[in-house]
Amino acid sequence: MSMQIELVTSRDNRHIKQAVKLRNSGRLRRELGLFVLEGARLCGDANASGVHIDSLFFTDDARAKYDAVEGLIAAADSVYCVSDAVFDKLAETAAPQGVMCICRMPEGGADLSPTGRYIACENLSDPSNLGALARTAEALGSDGLILLGGGCDPYSPKAQRAAMGSLLRLPIFRFDDAVGGANELIGIGLKLYAAVVDSTAASVGEAGFGDGSVIVIGNEGNGMSERLISVCQNRVYIPISGRAESFNAAAAATILLWEQLKERSADEQ
Amino acid sequence: MSMQIELVTSRDNRHIKQAVKLRNSGRLRRELGLFVLEGARLCGDANASGVHIDSLFFTDDARAKYDAVEGLIAAADSVYCVSDAVFDKLAETAAPQGVMCICRMPEGGADLSPTGRYIACENLSDPSNLGALARTAEALGSDGLILLGGGCDPYSPKAQRAAMGSLLRLPIFRFDDAVGGANELIGIGLKLYAAVVDSTAASVGEAGFGDGSVIVIGNEGNGMSERLISVCQNRVYIPISGRAESFNAAAAATILLWEQLKERSADEQ
Repeated sequence: MSMQIELVTSRDNRHIKQAVKLRNSGRLRRELGLFVLEGARLCGDANASGVHIDSLFFTDDARAKYDAVEGLIAAADSVYCVSDAVFDKLAETAAPQGVMCICRMPEGGADLSPTGRYIACENLSDPSNLGALARTAEALGSDGLILLGGGCDPYSPKAQRAAMGSLLRLPIFRFDDAVGGANELIGIGLKLYAAVVDSTAASVGEAGFGDGSVIVIGNEGNGMSERLISVCQNRVYIPISGRAESFNAAAAATILLWEQLKERSADEQ
Repeated sequence: MSMQIELVTSRDNRHIKQAVKLRNSGRLRRELGLFVLEGARLCGDANASGVHIDSLFFTDDARAKYDAVEGLIAAADSVYCVSDAVFDKLAETAAPQGVMCICRMPEGGADLSPTGRYIACENLSDPSNLGALARTAEALGSDGLILLGGGCDPYSPKAQRAAMGSLLRLPIFRFDDAVGGANELIGIGLKLYAAVVDSTAASVGEAGFGDGSVIVIGNEGNGMSERLISVCQNRVYIPISGRAESFNAAAAATILLWEQLKERSADEQ
Protein backbone atom coordinates (compact mmCIF):
# COMPACT_ATOMS: atom_id res chain seq x y z
CA MET A 1 0.00 0.00 0.00
CA SER A 2 1.15 3.50 -0.72
CA MET A 3 -0.34 6.95 -0.64
CA GLN A 4 2.52 8.40 -2.61
CA ILE A 5 1.21 9.64 -5.93
CA GLU A 6 3.57 10.11 -8.86
CA LEU A 7 2.59 12.67 -11.51
CA VAL A 8 3.03 11.53 -15.11
CA THR A 9 2.78 13.93 -18.06
CA SER A 10 4.99 12.11 -20.56
CA ARG A 11 3.56 9.48 -22.88
CA ASP A 12 7.03 7.92 -22.91
CA ASN A 13 7.05 7.23 -19.18
CA ARG A 14 8.13 3.61 -18.67
CA HIS A 15 5.13 2.73 -16.47
CA ILE A 16 2.79 3.95 -19.19
CA LYS A 17 4.63 1.94 -21.82
CA GLN A 18 4.48 -1.17 -19.64
CA ALA A 19 0.71 -0.78 -19.15
CA VAL A 20 0.15 -0.45 -22.91
CA LYS A 21 2.26 -3.56 -23.52
CA LEU A 22 0.25 -5.53 -20.97
CA ARG A 23 -2.97 -4.33 -22.57
CA ASN A 24 -1.85 -5.59 -25.97
CA SER A 25 0.08 -8.79 -25.23
CA GLY A 26 -1.46 -11.97 -23.86
CA ARG A 27 2.00 -13.53 -23.73
CA LEU A 28 3.38 -10.76 -21.53
CA ARG A 29 0.33 -10.94 -19.27
CA ARG A 30 0.87 -14.64 -18.70
CA GLU A 31 4.64 -14.22 -18.27
CA LEU A 32 4.26 -11.56 -15.58
CA GLY A 33 0.97 -12.75 -14.09
CA LEU A 34 -0.42 -9.24 -14.54
CA PHE A 35 -3.33 -7.79 -16.53
CA VAL A 36 -4.99 -4.41 -17.05
CA LEU A 37 -8.52 -3.26 -16.28
CA GLU A 38 -10.04 -0.03 -17.50
CA GLY A 39 -12.99 1.92 -16.12
CA ALA A 40 -14.03 3.03 -12.64
CA ARG A 41 -16.63 0.30 -12.23
CA LEU A 42 -14.44 -2.60 -13.34
CA CYS A 43 -11.41 -1.43 -11.32
CA GLY A 44 -13.60 -0.84 -8.26
CA ASP A 45 -15.14 -4.32 -8.67
CA ALA A 46 -11.67 -5.88 -8.82
CA ASN A 47 -10.65 -4.11 -5.63
CA ALA A 48 -13.86 -5.19 -3.89
CA SER A 49 -13.26 -8.78 -5.05
CA GLY A 50 -9.85 -8.86 -3.38
CA VAL A 51 -7.81 -8.68 -6.58
CA HIS A 52 -4.33 -7.30 -5.86
CA ILE A 53 -3.89 -3.86 -7.49
CA ASP A 54 -0.31 -3.48 -8.61
CA SER A 55 -0.58 -0.03 -10.21
CA LEU A 56 -3.30 2.58 -10.56
CA PHE A 57 -3.44 5.28 -13.26
CA PHE A 58 -6.05 8.02 -12.97
CA THR A 59 -6.76 11.54 -14.20
CA ASP A 60 -7.74 14.43 -11.91
CA ASP A 61 -11.18 14.53 -13.54
CA ALA A 62 -11.72 10.85 -12.77
CA ARG A 63 -10.75 11.31 -9.11
CA ALA A 64 -13.33 14.06 -8.77
CA LYS A 65 -16.01 12.03 -10.54
CA TYR A 66 -15.69 8.42 -9.35
CA ASP A 67 -15.83 7.40 -5.69
CA ALA A 68 -13.97 4.17 -6.45
CA VAL A 69 -10.73 6.07 -7.10
CA GLU A 70 -9.97 6.83 -3.41
CA GLY A 71 -10.27 3.14 -2.50
CA LEU A 72 -8.00 2.24 -5.40
CA ILE A 73 -5.42 4.85 -4.35
CA ALA A 74 -5.37 3.31 -0.89
CA ALA A 75 -5.09 -0.26 -2.21
CA ALA A 76 -2.59 0.07 -5.06
CA ASP A 77 1.15 -0.58 -4.64
CA SER A 78 1.97 2.27 -7.04
CA VAL A 79 -0.23 5.24 -7.90
CA TYR A 80 0.13 7.50 -10.94
CA CYS A 81 -1.88 10.65 -11.59
CA VAL A 82 -1.67 11.17 -15.35
CA SER A 83 -2.58 13.94 -17.79
CA ASP A 84 -5.49 13.47 -20.21
CA ALA A 85 -3.05 13.10 -23.10
CA VAL A 86 -1.22 10.31 -21.30
CA PHE A 87 -4.47 8.56 -20.45
CA ASP A 88 -5.50 8.66 -24.10
CA LYS A 89 -2.46 6.52 -24.81
CA LEU A 90 -3.39 4.05 -22.05
CA ALA A 91 -7.06 3.83 -22.93
CA GLU A 92 -8.56 1.30 -25.29
CA THR A 93 -12.05 2.78 -25.25
CA ALA A 94 -13.26 5.75 -27.29
CA ALA A 95 -14.46 7.90 -24.38
CA PRO A 96 -12.18 6.84 -21.51
CA GLN A 97 -13.23 7.43 -17.90
CA GLY A 98 -9.66 8.08 -16.80
CA VAL A 99 -9.17 5.06 -14.51
CA MET A 100 -6.93 2.07 -15.25
CA CYS A 101 -5.29 -0.57 -13.09
CA ILE A 102 -2.60 -3.16 -13.51
CA CYS A 103 -3.81 -6.15 -11.47
CA ARG A 104 -2.21 -9.40 -10.35
CA MET A 105 -3.85 -12.58 -11.63
CA PRO A 106 -5.39 -14.56 -8.76
CA GLU A 107 -3.22 -17.60 -7.97
CA GLY A 108 -4.46 -21.12 -7.47
CA GLY A 109 -7.66 -20.34 -5.63
CA ALA A 110 -10.53 -22.79 -5.58
CA ASP A 111 -10.06 -26.49 -6.32
CA LEU A 112 -12.31 -28.35 -8.72
CA SER A 113 -14.98 -30.24 -6.79
CA PRO A 114 -16.42 -33.62 -7.84
CA THR A 115 -19.89 -32.27 -6.96
CA GLY A 116 -19.51 -28.89 -8.69
CA ARG A 117 -21.33 -27.67 -11.78
CA TYR A 118 -19.03 -26.23 -14.41
CA ILE A 119 -18.93 -24.97 -17.97
CA ALA A 120 -15.90 -25.77 -20.10
CA CYS A 121 -15.01 -24.39 -23.51
CA GLU A 122 -12.48 -25.68 -25.99
CA ASN A 123 -10.44 -23.08 -27.76
CA LEU A 124 -13.02 -20.26 -27.66
CA SER A 125 -11.72 -17.53 -29.98
CA ASP A 126 -13.73 -14.37 -29.25
CA PRO A 127 -12.86 -12.70 -25.92
CA SER A 128 -16.26 -10.94 -25.86
CA ASN A 129 -17.96 -14.36 -26.05
CA LEU A 130 -15.76 -15.61 -23.23
CA GLY A 131 -16.61 -12.61 -21.07
CA ALA A 132 -20.33 -12.90 -21.78
CA LEU A 133 -20.20 -16.63 -20.98
CA ALA A 134 -18.56 -15.91 -17.61
CA ARG A 135 -21.18 -13.25 -16.83
CA THR A 136 -24.05 -15.65 -17.59
CA ALA A 137 -22.38 -18.53 -15.73
CA GLU A 138 -21.89 -16.45 -12.60
CA ALA A 139 -25.40 -15.01 -12.72
CA LEU A 140 -26.85 -18.53 -12.92
CA GLY A 141 -24.71 -19.82 -10.04
CA SER A 142 -22.03 -21.86 -11.82
CA ASP A 143 -19.05 -23.12 -9.80
CA GLY A 144 -16.53 -22.14 -12.43
CA LEU A 145 -15.32 -21.82 -15.97
CA ILE A 146 -12.86 -24.35 -17.41
CA LEU A 147 -10.71 -23.35 -20.40
CA LEU A 148 -9.55 -26.32 -22.46
CA GLY A 149 -6.79 -26.16 -25.07
CA GLY A 150 -5.93 -22.51 -25.12
CA GLY A 151 -8.16 -20.10 -26.98
CA CYS A 152 -8.54 -16.44 -26.17
CA ASP A 153 -7.18 -14.90 -22.99
CA PRO A 154 -9.66 -14.36 -20.11
CA TYR A 155 -7.41 -11.52 -18.93
CA SER A 156 -7.67 -9.53 -22.17
CA PRO A 157 -9.38 -6.13 -21.85
CA LYS A 158 -12.21 -7.21 -24.19
CA ALA A 159 -13.00 -10.33 -22.18
CA GLN A 160 -12.94 -8.38 -18.91
CA ARG A 161 -15.23 -5.68 -20.31
CA ALA A 162 -17.83 -8.18 -21.52
CA ALA A 163 -17.66 -10.07 -18.21
CA MET A 164 -18.59 -7.00 -16.14
CA GLY A 165 -16.47 -8.30 -13.26
CA SER A 166 -17.59 -11.96 -13.46
CA LEU A 167 -14.18 -13.15 -14.68
CA LEU A 168 -12.69 -11.75 -11.45
CA ARG A 169 -15.12 -13.61 -9.19
CA LEU A 170 -15.90 -16.88 -10.97
CA PRO A 171 -13.18 -19.53 -10.45
CA ILE A 172 -11.25 -20.09 -13.71
CA PHE A 173 -9.38 -23.34 -14.48
CA ARG A 174 -7.00 -23.59 -17.45
CA PHE A 175 -5.74 -26.72 -19.20
CA ASP A 176 -3.50 -26.14 -22.21
CA ASP A 177 -4.09 -29.71 -23.40
CA ALA A 178 -7.83 -30.14 -23.99
CA VAL A 179 -7.98 -33.94 -23.90
CA GLY A 180 -5.54 -34.17 -20.99
CA GLY A 181 -7.64 -31.65 -19.08
CA ALA A 182 -10.86 -33.53 -19.82
CA ASN A 183 -9.29 -36.73 -18.51
CA GLU A 184 -8.26 -34.93 -15.32
CA LEU A 185 -11.86 -33.77 -14.82
CA ILE A 186 -13.15 -37.30 -15.35
CA GLY A 187 -10.46 -38.56 -12.96
CA ILE A 188 -11.87 -36.55 -10.07
CA GLY A 189 -15.36 -37.91 -10.75
CA LEU A 190 -16.95 -35.26 -12.96
CA LYS A 191 -19.38 -36.16 -15.79
CA LEU A 192 -18.65 -34.34 -19.06
CA TYR A 193 -21.47 -33.41 -21.47
CA ALA A 194 -20.25 -32.51 -24.96
CA ALA A 195 -22.64 -30.02 -26.63
CA VAL A 196 -23.04 -31.20 -30.22
CA VAL A 197 -25.28 -30.41 -33.20
CA ASP A 198 -26.47 -33.99 -33.66
CA SER A 199 -30.02 -35.13 -33.02
CA THR A 200 -28.88 -38.63 -32.04
CA ALA A 201 -27.41 -37.16 -28.84
CA ALA A 202 -29.54 -36.72 -25.69
CA SER A 203 -31.89 -33.76 -25.82
CA VAL A 204 -30.90 -31.04 -23.35
CA GLY A 205 -34.21 -31.41 -21.52
CA GLU A 206 -33.51 -35.09 -20.89
CA ALA A 207 -29.78 -34.84 -20.19
CA GLY A 208 -30.28 -34.88 -16.43
CA PHE A 209 -27.42 -32.59 -15.52
CA GLY A 210 -26.81 -32.51 -11.82
CA ASP A 211 -24.05 -32.16 -9.26
CA GLY A 212 -20.68 -33.13 -10.68
CA SER A 213 -21.53 -32.08 -14.25
CA VAL A 214 -19.44 -30.21 -16.80
CA ILE A 215 -21.00 -28.84 -19.99
CA VAL A 216 -18.36 -28.69 -22.74
CA ILE A 217 -18.79 -26.33 -25.68
CA GLY A 218 -16.57 -25.88 -28.71
CA ASN A 219 -15.05 -23.10 -30.75
CA GLU A 220 -17.54 -20.63 -32.28
CA GLY A 221 -16.78 -21.58 -35.87
CA ASN A 222 -15.48 -25.13 -35.73
CA GLY A 223 -17.27 -26.65 -32.75
CA MET A 224 -15.50 -29.20 -30.55
CA SER A 225 -12.67 -31.39 -31.75
CA GLU A 226 -13.59 -35.03 -32.41
CA ARG A 227 -10.91 -36.13 -29.96
CA LEU A 228 -12.45 -34.12 -27.15
CA ILE A 229 -16.00 -35.27 -27.97
CA SER A 230 -14.88 -38.89 -27.83
CA VAL A 231 -13.46 -38.43 -24.32
CA CYS A 232 -16.67 -36.94 -22.88
CA GLN A 233 -19.00 -39.50 -21.23
CA ASN A 234 -22.18 -37.87 -22.60
CA ARG A 235 -23.31 -35.95 -25.66
CA VAL A 236 -26.14 -33.43 -25.54
CA TYR A 237 -27.93 -31.34 -28.15
CA ILE A 238 -30.55 -28.60 -28.28
CA PRO A 239 -33.52 -29.48 -30.52
CA ILE A 240 -33.96 -27.01 -33.39
CA SER A 241 -37.30 -25.96 -34.86
CA GLY A 242 -38.07 -24.22 -38.11
CA ARG A 243 -35.53 -23.87 -40.87
CA ALA A 244 -32.79 -22.42 -38.71
CA GLU A 245 -29.70 -24.62 -38.92
CA SER A 246 -28.07 -23.88 -35.61
CA PHE A 247 -27.94 -21.64 -32.57
CA ASN A 248 -25.22 -19.07 -32.23
CA ALA A 249 -22.57 -20.05 -29.69
CA ALA A 250 -23.75 -17.62 -26.99
CA ALA A 251 -27.40 -18.72 -27.22
CA ALA A 252 -26.49 -22.41 -27.08
CA ALA A 253 -24.25 -21.89 -24.05
CA THR A 254 -26.96 -19.88 -22.27
CA ILE A 255 -29.60 -22.58 -22.77
CA LEU A 256 -27.23 -25.32 -21.57
CA LEU A 257 -26.17 -23.32 -18.50
CA TRP A 258 -29.78 -22.53 -17.67
CA GLU A 259 -30.77 -26.20 -17.79
CA GLN A 260 -27.68 -27.25 -15.83
CA LEU A 261 -28.13 -24.67 -13.08
CA LYS A 262 -31.79 -23.78 -12.73
CA GLU A 263 -32.86 -26.47 -10.27
CA ARG A 264 -29.88 -25.54 -8.20
CA SER A 265 -30.76 -21.86 -8.10
CA ALA A 266 -34.26 -22.91 -7.04
CA ASP A 267 -32.82 -25.13 -4.27
CA GLU A 268 -30.79 -22.30 -2.86
CA GLN A 269 -33.65 -19.87 -2.51
CA MET B 1 -37.33 -12.74 -64.41
CA SER B 2 -34.54 -11.97 -66.79
CA MET B 3 -31.46 -13.72 -68.08
CA GLN B 4 -30.07 -10.52 -69.53
CA ILE B 5 -26.87 -9.68 -67.71
CA GLU B 6 -25.54 -6.13 -67.72
CA LEU B 7 -21.79 -5.66 -67.26
CA VAL B 8 -20.77 -2.92 -64.82
CA THR B 9 -17.20 -1.67 -64.52
CA SER B 10 -17.84 1.88 -63.27
CA ARG B 11 -18.18 2.62 -59.57
CA ASP B 12 -20.37 5.57 -60.58
CA ASN B 13 -23.00 3.37 -62.25
CA ARG B 14 -26.41 4.48 -60.94
CA HIS B 15 -27.46 0.96 -59.92
CA ILE B 16 -24.32 0.63 -57.82
CA LYS B 17 -24.94 4.01 -56.22
CA GLN B 18 -28.53 3.04 -55.44
CA ALA B 19 -27.43 -0.22 -53.78
CA VAL B 20 -24.91 1.62 -51.59
CA LYS B 21 -27.59 4.13 -50.58
CA LEU B 22 -29.96 1.30 -49.65
CA ARG B 23 -27.21 -0.37 -47.65
CA ASN B 24 -26.62 2.79 -45.64
CA SER B 25 -30.07 4.35 -45.20
CA GLY B 26 -32.87 2.82 -43.15
CA ARG B 27 -35.14 5.67 -44.24
CA LEU B 28 -34.61 4.92 -47.93
CA ARG B 29 -35.16 1.19 -47.32
CA ARG B 30 -38.50 1.86 -45.68
CA GLU B 31 -39.49 4.43 -48.34
CA LEU B 32 -38.83 2.03 -51.22
CA GLY B 33 -39.65 -1.24 -49.46
CA LEU B 34 -36.26 -2.58 -50.54
CA PHE B 35 -33.18 -3.83 -48.68
CA VAL B 36 -29.79 -5.33 -49.49
CA LEU B 37 -28.32 -8.71 -48.63
CA GLU B 38 -24.68 -9.66 -49.04
CA GLY B 39 -23.09 -13.09 -49.30
CA ALA B 40 -23.88 -16.22 -51.31
CA ARG B 41 -25.50 -18.06 -48.41
CA LEU B 42 -27.75 -15.21 -47.28
CA CYS B 43 -28.85 -14.30 -50.83
CA GLY B 44 -29.49 -17.95 -51.65
CA ASP B 45 -31.52 -18.34 -48.43
CA ALA B 46 -33.63 -15.33 -49.36
CA ASN B 47 -34.33 -16.79 -52.78
CA ALA B 48 -35.24 -20.17 -51.25
CA SER B 49 -37.55 -18.42 -48.77
CA GLY B 50 -39.51 -16.79 -51.61
CA VAL B 51 -38.17 -13.28 -51.08
CA HIS B 52 -38.49 -11.26 -54.31
CA ILE B 53 -35.04 -10.48 -55.74
CA ASP B 54 -35.14 -7.08 -57.38
CA SER B 55 -31.48 -6.87 -58.45
CA LEU B 56 -28.47 -9.16 -58.30
CA PHE B 57 -24.83 -8.03 -58.37
CA PHE B 58 -22.11 -10.66 -58.71
CA THR B 59 -18.48 -11.03 -59.77
CA ASP B 60 -17.24 -13.65 -62.23
CA ASP B 61 -15.27 -15.33 -59.44
CA ALA B 62 -18.39 -15.63 -57.32
CA ARG B 63 -20.36 -17.21 -60.17
CA ALA B 64 -17.67 -19.86 -60.55
CA LYS B 65 -17.49 -20.49 -56.81
CA TYR B 66 -21.06 -20.39 -55.47
CA ASP B 67 -23.87 -22.61 -56.79
CA ALA B 68 -26.49 -20.18 -55.47
CA VAL B 69 -25.57 -17.58 -58.10
CA GLU B 70 -27.26 -19.39 -61.04
CA GLY B 71 -30.56 -19.60 -59.14
CA LEU B 72 -30.29 -15.92 -58.26
CA ILE B 73 -29.58 -14.99 -61.90
CA ALA B 74 -32.73 -16.84 -62.92
CA ALA B 75 -34.84 -15.25 -60.17
CA ALA B 76 -33.71 -11.61 -60.23
CA ASP B 77 -35.52 -8.88 -62.19
CA SER B 78 -32.19 -7.24 -63.07
CA VAL B 79 -28.77 -8.87 -63.13
CA TYR B 80 -25.41 -7.08 -63.03
CA CYS B 81 -22.03 -8.72 -63.44
CA VAL B 82 -19.58 -6.33 -61.78
CA SER B 83 -15.81 -5.98 -61.61
CA ASP B 84 -13.98 -6.65 -58.33
CA ALA B 85 -13.35 -2.92 -57.90
CA VAL B 86 -17.05 -2.17 -58.26
CA PHE B 87 -17.94 -4.92 -55.82
CA ASP B 88 -15.55 -3.47 -53.25
CA LYS B 89 -17.69 -0.33 -53.30
CA LEU B 90 -20.87 -2.37 -52.80
CA ALA B 91 -19.50 -4.61 -50.07
CA GLU B 92 -19.71 -3.89 -46.39
CA THR B 93 -17.59 -6.84 -45.32
CA ALA B 94 -13.79 -6.99 -45.32
CA ALA B 95 -13.38 -10.08 -47.55
CA PRO B 96 -16.47 -9.92 -49.77
CA GLN B 97 -17.73 -13.07 -51.54
CA GLY B 98 -18.88 -11.09 -54.57
CA VAL B 99 -22.65 -11.64 -54.28
CA MET B 100 -25.21 -8.97 -53.32
CA CYS B 101 -28.95 -8.63 -53.86
CA ILE B 102 -31.49 -5.88 -53.58
CA CYS B 103 -34.61 -7.59 -52.20
CA ARG B 104 -38.21 -6.52 -51.74
CA MET B 105 -39.50 -6.48 -48.15
CA PRO B 106 -42.20 -9.13 -47.65
CA GLU B 107 -45.61 -7.45 -47.48
CA GLY B 108 -48.29 -8.17 -44.91
CA GLY B 109 -47.80 -11.88 -44.54
CA ALA B 110 -48.90 -13.70 -41.41
CA ASP B 111 -51.50 -12.29 -39.01
CA LEU B 112 -50.94 -12.26 -35.27
CA SER B 113 -52.71 -15.21 -33.67
CA PRO B 114 -54.33 -15.12 -30.19
CA THR B 115 -52.77 -18.55 -29.55
CA GLY B 116 -49.29 -17.73 -30.88
CA ARG B 117 -46.07 -17.46 -28.90
CA TYR B 118 -44.14 -14.28 -29.62
CA ILE B 119 -41.19 -12.22 -28.48
CA ALA B 120 -41.49 -8.43 -28.54
CA CYS B 121 -38.76 -5.87 -28.02
CA GLU B 122 -39.10 -2.19 -27.28
CA ASN B 123 -36.68 0.07 -29.05
CA LEU B 124 -33.79 -2.42 -29.38
CA SER B 125 -30.76 -0.44 -30.51
CA ASP B 126 -28.14 -2.94 -31.71
CA PRO B 127 -28.96 -4.59 -35.07
CA SER B 128 -26.66 -7.53 -34.24
CA ASN B 129 -28.71 -8.20 -31.09
CA LEU B 130 -31.91 -8.01 -33.12
CA GLY B 131 -30.56 -10.48 -35.67
CA ALA B 132 -29.30 -12.89 -32.99
CA LEU B 133 -32.68 -12.67 -31.23
CA ALA B 134 -34.50 -13.60 -34.45
CA ARG B 135 -32.11 -16.51 -35.03
CA THR B 136 -32.71 -17.90 -31.52
CA ALA B 137 -36.47 -17.29 -31.73
CA GLU B 138 -36.77 -19.18 -35.02
CA ALA B 139 -34.58 -22.05 -33.85
CA LEU B 140 -36.77 -22.48 -30.76
CA GLY B 141 -40.00 -22.39 -32.76
CA SER B 142 -41.38 -18.89 -32.04
CA ASP B 143 -44.34 -17.63 -34.07
CA GLY B 144 -42.81 -14.23 -34.65
CA LEU B 145 -40.94 -11.16 -33.57
CA ILE B 146 -42.79 -7.98 -32.62
CA LEU B 147 -40.95 -4.64 -32.79
CA LEU B 148 -42.43 -2.01 -30.49
CA GLY B 149 -41.65 1.70 -30.73
CA GLY B 150 -39.03 1.83 -33.43
CA GLY B 151 -35.46 0.86 -32.61
CA CYS B 152 -32.99 -0.50 -35.10
CA ASP B 153 -33.97 -1.66 -38.58
CA PRO B 154 -34.46 -5.43 -39.09
CA TYR B 155 -33.57 -4.88 -42.75
CA SER B 156 -30.14 -3.41 -42.03
CA PRO B 157 -27.18 -5.45 -43.30
CA LYS B 158 -25.89 -6.02 -39.74
CA ALA B 159 -29.20 -7.38 -38.49
CA GLN B 160 -29.55 -9.65 -41.52
CA ARG B 161 -26.02 -10.99 -41.10
CA ALA B 162 -26.52 -11.85 -37.42
CA ALA B 163 -29.90 -13.47 -38.20
CA MET B 164 -28.41 -15.94 -40.72
CA GLY B 165 -31.67 -15.87 -42.71
CA SER B 166 -34.06 -16.04 -39.74
CA LEU B 167 -35.28 -12.45 -40.25
CA LEU B 168 -36.42 -13.51 -43.74
CA ARG B 169 -38.44 -16.48 -42.46
CA LEU B 170 -39.75 -15.47 -39.04
CA PRO B 171 -42.87 -13.27 -39.24
CA ILE B 172 -42.05 -9.69 -38.17
CA PHE B 173 -44.67 -7.25 -36.83
CA ARG B 174 -43.86 -3.56 -36.38
CA PHE B 175 -45.68 -1.01 -34.21
CA ASP B 176 -44.20 2.49 -34.19
CA ASP B 177 -46.11 3.33 -31.01
CA ALA B 178 -45.00 0.86 -28.30
CA VAL B 179 -47.95 1.31 -25.93
CA GLY B 180 -50.48 1.44 -28.76
CA GLY B 181 -48.99 -1.76 -30.18
CA ALA B 182 -49.09 -3.49 -26.79
CA ASN B 183 -52.77 -2.57 -26.44
CA GLU B 184 -53.47 -4.02 -29.88
CA LEU B 185 -51.82 -7.29 -28.84
CA ILE B 186 -53.88 -7.40 -25.64
CA GLY B 187 -56.97 -6.60 -27.70
CA ILE B 188 -56.64 -9.78 -29.73
CA GLY B 189 -56.30 -11.85 -26.56
CA LEU B 190 -52.53 -12.13 -26.05
CA LYS B 191 -50.94 -12.12 -22.58
CA LEU B 192 -47.92 -9.82 -22.30
CA TYR B 193 -45.00 -10.67 -19.96
CA ALA B 194 -42.69 -7.73 -19.27
CA ALA B 195 -39.13 -8.93 -18.54
CA VAL B 196 -37.90 -6.85 -15.60
CA VAL B 197 -34.95 -6.86 -13.19
CA ASP B 198 -37.12 -6.95 -10.07
CA SER B 199 -37.32 -9.90 -7.71
CA THR B 200 -40.92 -9.06 -6.74
CA ALA B 201 -42.00 -10.14 -10.25
CA ALA B 202 -42.84 -13.78 -11.05
CA SER B 203 -39.78 -16.00 -11.47
CA VAL B 204 -39.37 -17.18 -15.05
CA GLY B 205 -39.71 -20.82 -13.96
CA GLU B 206 -43.13 -20.06 -12.43
CA ALA B 207 -44.41 -17.65 -15.07
CA GLY B 208 -46.44 -20.34 -16.83
CA PHE B 209 -45.99 -19.06 -20.36
CA GLY B 210 -48.22 -20.89 -22.81
CA ASP B 211 -50.18 -20.37 -25.99
CA GLY B 212 -51.10 -16.75 -26.51
CA SER B 213 -48.04 -15.37 -24.71
CA VAL B 214 -45.75 -12.49 -25.64
CA ILE B 215 -42.44 -11.95 -23.84
CA VAL B 216 -41.55 -8.25 -23.90
CA ILE B 217 -37.93 -7.15 -23.48
CA GLY B 218 -36.53 -3.64 -23.37
CA ASN B 219 -33.67 -1.65 -24.80
CA GLU B 220 -30.16 -3.00 -24.06
CA GLY B 221 -29.11 -0.04 -21.94
CA ASN B 222 -32.30 1.43 -20.57
CA GLY B 223 -34.63 -1.54 -20.26
CA MET B 224 -38.35 -1.13 -20.91
CA SER B 225 -40.21 2.15 -20.52
CA GLU B 226 -42.38 2.42 -17.40
CA ARG B 227 -45.39 3.14 -19.59
CA LEU B 228 -44.97 -0.11 -21.49
CA ILE B 229 -44.36 -2.17 -18.33
CA SER B 230 -47.57 -0.80 -16.82
CA VAL B 231 -49.60 -1.93 -19.84
CA CYS B 232 -48.32 -5.55 -19.73
CA GLN B 233 -50.55 -7.94 -17.75
CA ASN B 234 -47.60 -9.82 -16.18
CA ARG B 235 -44.07 -9.13 -15.03
CA VAL B 236 -41.37 -11.78 -15.05
CA TYR B 237 -37.75 -11.88 -13.88
CA ILE B 238 -34.79 -14.26 -14.03
CA PRO B 239 -33.34 -15.04 -10.58
CA ILE B 240 -29.69 -14.00 -10.26
CA SER B 241 -27.07 -15.85 -8.22
CA GLY B 242 -23.66 -14.73 -7.05
CA ARG B 243 -22.56 -11.13 -7.19
CA ALA B 244 -23.46 -10.57 -10.83
CA GLU B 245 -25.93 -7.70 -11.09
CA SER B 246 -27.72 -8.58 -14.29
CA PHE B 247 -27.74 -10.72 -17.40
CA ASN B 248 -26.74 -9.23 -20.71
CA ALA B 249 -29.70 -8.58 -23.00
CA ALA B 250 -29.01 -11.55 -25.30
CA ALA B 251 -28.67 -14.06 -22.45
CA ALA B 252 -31.87 -12.85 -20.77
CA ALA B 253 -33.83 -13.06 -24.02
CA THR B 254 -32.49 -16.57 -24.72
CA ILE B 255 -33.54 -17.89 -21.29
CA LEU B 256 -37.02 -16.35 -21.59
CA LEU B 257 -37.52 -17.74 -25.12
CA TRP B 258 -36.32 -21.17 -24.04
CA GLU B 259 -38.81 -21.28 -21.14
CA GLN B 260 -41.64 -19.94 -23.32
CA LEU B 261 -41.06 -22.38 -26.17
CA LYS B 262 -39.51 -25.57 -24.84
CA GLU B 263 -42.67 -27.49 -23.92
CA ARG B 264 -43.99 -26.61 -27.32
CA SER B 265 -40.95 -27.94 -29.18
CA ALA B 266 -41.33 -31.13 -27.15
CA ASP B 267 -45.04 -31.38 -28.11
CA GLU B 268 -44.24 -31.12 -31.77
CA GLN B 269 -41.74 -33.94 -31.85
